[in-house]
Amino acid sequence: MSDRRAVALIARKRDGGELDRDELRLLLSPVVGDEQLAAFLMAVVWHGMSDAETEALLDVMLESGERLTWPWPVCDKHSTGGVGDKATLVVAPLVAACGGRMAKMSGRGLGHTGGTLDKLESIPGFRTSLSIAEMRDQVERVGVAVCGQSDELAPADARLYALRDLTATTHSLPLVATSVMSKKIAAGADRLVLDVKAGEGAFMPDRRRAEELGDAMVRLGRSHGIETTALVSPMDEPMGHAVGNTLEVEEAKDVLRGDGPRDVREVALEAAAVLTGDRGRAEQVLGSGEAFEAFRRWVGAQGGHPDAPPDPAPIVVEALAPRATTVRRCHAYRIGELAMELGAGRRSKGATIDHAVGVVVHRKSGDAVGAGEPLATVHAREPVDPARAVACFSFEDDA
Amino acid sequence: MSDRRAVALIARKRDGGELDRDELRLLLSPVVGDEQLAAFLMAVVWHGMSDAETEALLDVMLESGERLTWPWPVCDKHSTGGVGDKATLVVAPLVAACGGRMAKMSGRGLGHTGGTLDKLESIPGFRTSLSIAEMRDQVERVGVAVCGQSDELAPADARLYALRDLTATTHSLPLVATSVMSKKIAAGADRLVLDVKAGEGAFMPDRRRAEELGDAMVRLGRSHGIETTALVSPMDEPMGHAVGNTLEVEEAKDVLRGDGPRDVREVALEAAAVLTGDRGRAEQVLGSGEAFEAFRRWVGAQGGHPDAPPDPAPIVVEALAPRATTVRRCHAYRIGELAMELGAGRRSKGATIDHAVGVVVHRKSGDAVGAGEPLATVHAREPVDPARAVACFSFEDDA
Repeated sequence: MSDRRAVALIARKRDGGELDRDELRLLLSPVVGDEQLAAFLMAVVWHGMSDAETEALLDVMLESGERLTWPWPVCDKHSTGGVGDKATLVVAPLVAACGGRMAKMSGRGLGHTGGTLDKLESIPGFRTSLSIAEMRDQVERVGVAVCGQSDELAPADARLYALRDLTATTHSLPLVATSVMSKKIAAGADRLVLDVKAGEGAFMPDRRRAEELGDAMVRLGRSHGIETTALVSPMDEPMGHAVGNTLEVEEAKDVLRGDGPRDVREVALEAAAVLTGDRGRAEQVLGSGEAFEAFRRWVGAQGGHPDAPPDPAPIVVEALAPRATTVRRCHAYRIGELAMELGAGRRSKGATIDHAVGVVVHRKSGDAVGAGEPLATVHAREPVDPARAVACFSFEDDA
Repeated sequence: MSDRRAVALIARKRDGGELDRDELRLLLSPVVGDEQLAAFLMAVVWHGMSDAETEALLDVMLESGERLTWPWPVCDKHSTGGVGDKATLVVAPLVAACGGRMAKMSGRGLGHTGGTLDKLESIPGFRTSLSIAEMRDQVERVGVAVCGQSDELAPADARLYALRDLTATTHSLPLVATSVMSKKIAAGADRLVLDVKAGEGAFMPDRRRAEELGDAMVRLGRSHGIETTALVSPMDEPMGHAVGNTLEVEEAKDVLRGDGPRDVREVALEAAAVLTGDRGRAEQVLGSGEAFEAFRRWVGAQGGHPDAPPDPAPIVVEALAPRATTVRRCHAYRIGELAMELGAGRRSKGATIDHAVGVVVHRKSGDAVGAGEPLATVHAREPVDPARAVACFSFEDDA
């Protein structure tokens, strides 16, 4: 399909102009062809969108589908995605343990970043497909539910998202902001925390752009009555130590037991503090075991076995430091790509993944390492050269 | 269809980079979807193309189809299109009358500009669909043949052209230049004159851009061994007086008889001088009746009746000057739009047209007109308000 009226609208955007709600509604309607929408998207990458236009696009995306309502206030969280980002696995039960209600729909990983659904599905028995009724019932009983995105919410976003992926138009601030917020607003949360990642392993390479994206999403959320807060957290190095689905779940469990890497704990506490309004209480439930108990109840409610031992990868090799040196950076993007190649992630939509494989890094920026000491452990299905993990690091004494 | 490899190529163009021949070949291959190609085209509108990239794109378009060869040197002409541009109807027989050989494939009109094929088809009996063998035979016998574009030549251009039309990506210099030149080079001419129109009724609004386009096409033609010359002619006002298919043929016949509007005669003589190398001879055959005889032979060879009286439009109304004044401009774009709305042109591809209707303008820039004197004559199928033709003019004493 294609539509002559769309040509004039694409031309206006091409020339740096602005479209109104009715015009955007036409562009996103089925009479306009994918080729027309693709040209429009590239023109948006080129010229951006005004605040009013971004709001209008969001509204058109929202009106394309259903909007959920809940009988009580619910919390939601979104991360723009990073390497080793298991914060949701901690934040969701943490909020529940603090007496809040967390109802979150989540996505799958693509490329070098992982997705929460994939991580949850590495827990034996865990079911990520819930009906809205099941979700409501579970939040009522255990305070938390995390499941896959409903097709009923913002279906226009699904079309745009698929098209952006094929046409190199993913990296546009208004397109990212409206894509995220259409799904979040449609999911009906009252309070939302956004974790915007900045760095080489993230969507937005620099902090300033990440802040702009956060600000744009906060504006969109607040104008729809959602108490929205954006945090910006660094993503030059992997979050925590573990990258890979099962490995990340185990690390999240460590944090929920009051242990685990400090950066994961800190991001989780900050997000929980925003959502519950009480950081002290969040710290307390992490220390007392209540957060871990909430995790066990949550996983059990979705059919999973929270205490099942992780299914190990058959091949475990250590990547050793070639000399005594200091780590300049453990490159998030490289680790993410390596994990994807091991099978932990998917290069293209719909590919299957291997939950057991991944990388655990032992040294990060500023850490000294002796010659022959482990930099990282590679968990693999097939034999792998540990030099590939060493190549994910740079050192202070690199030429 | 869509192809993951294309995403990286689109991204490079989006970021202002350059693609090589193999990469462009992939982009134009059938495995790449229209939505991907559309995003690429918008990125080309954004960033343009280097000379090397433009050459590579042209080569990929050329290798997509056949290339004609002729047993003798042939001439060709192309106009970027304007309102009332009937120069080809004059140039083609003029070159033949001078002893040259003219073998031209032509297109149909779209929007406010007319197409040579439509004008020729307003001649009773004229057949625009010729095989290559028929074309060769006719050029051999009468020195001139003009027919529709062959599907065998540069078919990649046909796909790009249709996509550009739907996605507001027509106005990009490298895309226009390669589209025109792929068809011209594939048609096998030895000598080519390009009439690049500049002005409000043309593709390129200003003269500098028109010259750039001309230069780019000349470079492409010469690098393929074609003696190519670009003329730039103004298109702020209609060419000549007549706009509309039958009306334009009659005006072209006037010029071929040594009469007719001076601007049409001048563009035709200039083009013929480039193609034949002898302006004096061209002026002579216009004066002697030989050019008109060549027109009659040509039309007859293609089945047309050159002396058939034109089929008149049923309604003819005069648009009268509202006061005594001087014309500032007879706006080409407005006249073109009015003629299209009368039925002389088509708003969208494949629409049928009415050969008899159109507008004849009697006054142009700088011409004085008395109150109640005719500014234009409207030839219509349905009753029409002559004020619509008056509105195509601006006057020196306009507020």
